[in-house]
Amino acid sequence: MARAVCVIAMEKKKGLISNSEFRRDPVSGDWILVASGRRKRPRAGFDHRDRLSSAVKGCPFDDPRSSGVLSPLAWFPHPTKRRPDAEPALDDWWVQIIPNKFPALKPHSICPSIEGDGSYQRMGGIGFHEVIITRDHVRRISEMTVNEVETIFFAFQERYRTLQREPCIEYILIFHNQGPAAGATIYHPHSQLIALPIIPPDVSRSLEGSRVYYASHGKCVHCAMLDWEREKKERLVYENDRFLVISPYAPRVSYEIRLYPKKHQSRFEEADAQDRSALADAFKTALRKIKKAMGDPDYNFFIHTAPAKAEGPDYYHWHIEILPHTSTWAGLELGTGIEVVAVSPEVAARDLKNGA
Amino acid sequence: MARAVCVIAMEKKKGLISNSEFRRDPVSGDWILVASGRRKRPRAGFDHRDRLSSAVKGCPFDDPRSSGVLSPLAWFPHPTKRRPDAEPALDDWWVQIIPNKFPALKPHSICPSIEGDGSYQRMGGIGFHEVIITRDHVRRISEMTVNEVETIFFAFQERYRTLQREPCIEYILIFHNQGPAAGATIYHPHSQLIALPIIPPDVSRSLEGSRVYYASHGKCVHCAMLDWEREKKERLVYENDRFLVISPYAPRVSYEIRLYPKKHQSRFEEADAQDRSALADAFKTALRKIKKAMGDPDYNFFIHTAPAKAEGPDYYHWHIEILPHTSTWAGLELGTGIEVVAVSPEVAARDLKNGA
Repeated sequence: MARAVCVIAMEKKKGLISNSEFRRDPVSGDWILVASGRRKRPRAGFDHRDRLSSAVKGCPFDDPRSSGVLSPLAWFPHPTKRRPDAEPALDDWWVQIIPNKFPALKPHSICPSIEGDGSYQRMGGIGFHEVIITRDHVRRISEMTVNEVETIFFAFQERYRTLQREPCIEYILIFHNQGPAAGATIYHPHSQLIALPIIPPDVSRSLEGSRVYYASHGKCVHCAMLDWEREKKERLVYENDRFLVISPYAPRVSYEIRLYPKKHQSRFEEADAQDRSALADAFKTALRKIKKAMGDPDYNFFIHTAPAKAEGPDYYHWHIEILPHTSTWAGLELGTGIEVVAVSPEVAARDLKNGA
Repeated sequence: MARAVCVIAMEKKKGLISNSEFRRDPVSGDWILVASGRRKRPRAGFDHRDRLSSAVKGCPFDDPRSSGVLSPLAWFPHPTKRRPDAEPALDDWWVQIIPNKFPALKPHSICPSIEGDGSYQRMGGIGFHEVIITRDHVRRISEMTVNEVETIFFAFQERYRTLQREPCIEYILIFHNQGPAAGATIYHPHSQLIALPIIPPDVSRSLEGSRVYYASHGKCVHCAMLDWEREKKERLVYENDRFLVISPYAPRVSYEIRLYPKKHQSRFEEADAQDRSALADAFKTALRKIKKAMGDPDYNFFIHTAPAKAEGPDYYHWHIEILPHTSTWAGLELGTGIEVVAVSPEVAARDLKNGA
């Protein structure tokens, strides 16, 4: 124990460990994360004209080995382009998962606990921060085949299952920043995974809302909402046999899109091969519709699923949210938490339905 | 009544009334605002080199009369540049308040109530949305005199007091977007006021946190926090006889700054002339420190005060939050509600203290 502390102190001195720390607002109770190591990462500044030239200049994700990642955390071969009669080798990778070079959180053998700090509370910034890369420097998810997209979701699930078992992990978020306005700092398409030692505040609120509805109605609130959307149709953007794509009734940004499995399913990790294929179809269709209706905006997406250690839960329903970057959150949004959208979801759904 | 409905229907048909509507997320319980009328407002695209030329091109705020605002909602003369022996006339205005041309909310004689909409809830987008303009096209608050800034705060208080009495109003937020990255669409410095028929979710959470702390400790949580900051000093940026400027322990962005009155005061509207002068000094100092330490970033600020109709409340403590635009909220922040800051508030306080 004394030795562990000593090693950490020495590594801190050498600058090898960043002082990542969760801190709790004493009034709202919300957590924020101070992650000084993030300061060193490259700045977003590329534009679309750079998309080919940045490969020539040396993209760190074209071949992670060349930027010092000797062995990925996991990798998955291309679903169709396989060499006949050969065992898949790393050279055949389609999806590769590597540690984030500028992690917001770092692994640790001791789980963090909440500590007092005068009037405040803090907790060590312990967890995992990974990057999920697809091989192609240029092609985005909307431009990939259904099989290629299905493999990405399979890779996401594999990382979920692996990190879910880690002792300190309470919630795992997979997210994707497409384009500099959406916060991407590297052109090459990539998603990120963050495994957290807390259930984050936004997720907590949605879990609580779902739990309360289930307790009083005996039904999943997301299922009730999807039934209503299928009846009304005015916010339905696309559906296939297993997934619904909707423009949500109370979106956070104009043209926001959400994807839900039609059958009740609490966890993204439970989706089987057929679910993943249907998801891949619905997901790339949704992205193509955004591109066509809105003129190729930058966007973020993320997967909301049940917490890592929760049993079930029957009341929760996993889904994906895609948020095109359509506006800047200004004083009104920052000061109230009320997001203002200029395009109603009914108009957005009509525009999106007509696209792609 | 029938006539009123008819007029509204006709005005809707003519596009004169926007379909502004609050909608509640059925899972998180949070409200968003659909404000279609906001779609028509000008796009932010100016840069700093335009600061003089945009005046020549015809700025709508240089002389609001020229853009159709015949009579302001209120106006205040310059605190020192007054013509001797003359009654102040509108030509002498320093601060002018006019209705927002693209309002997110509109006045109405009937207060809105929550209505069911299938699985969802909605409420009419009723309220006030005003613009508070200072006369100078170029000078920002950091460049004004203490007297000029004090007059701005006096104008804010006057509007607070007026709109607080309106029957449907539950919360009033004054905010300011400086620069296009912070969401400003017009160069000319201006603040905005939004008077809402609900207490917004972020404010509700902070009120509840304050109430719970007060109930268990018999003390205002903000006062306890300020005592701790004055003792520790490491996050103290500036103070004068009446105000403290701190780098908060759990900031939402790097280099965030908050200003608090030293004495316990629930409401911004209660600040007297001496408070306002001290506030003006602390506030322009804070803005100058941000400019010097960070190289003139765009920023937002807003005032958090007690709800319009609440008695007291003893547990709340008004304050101003200034958020420099230092990063983009990407998938991690959007998917968790955990804001990630790369600069610790202790480092930020040191940088800011050395500035200005």
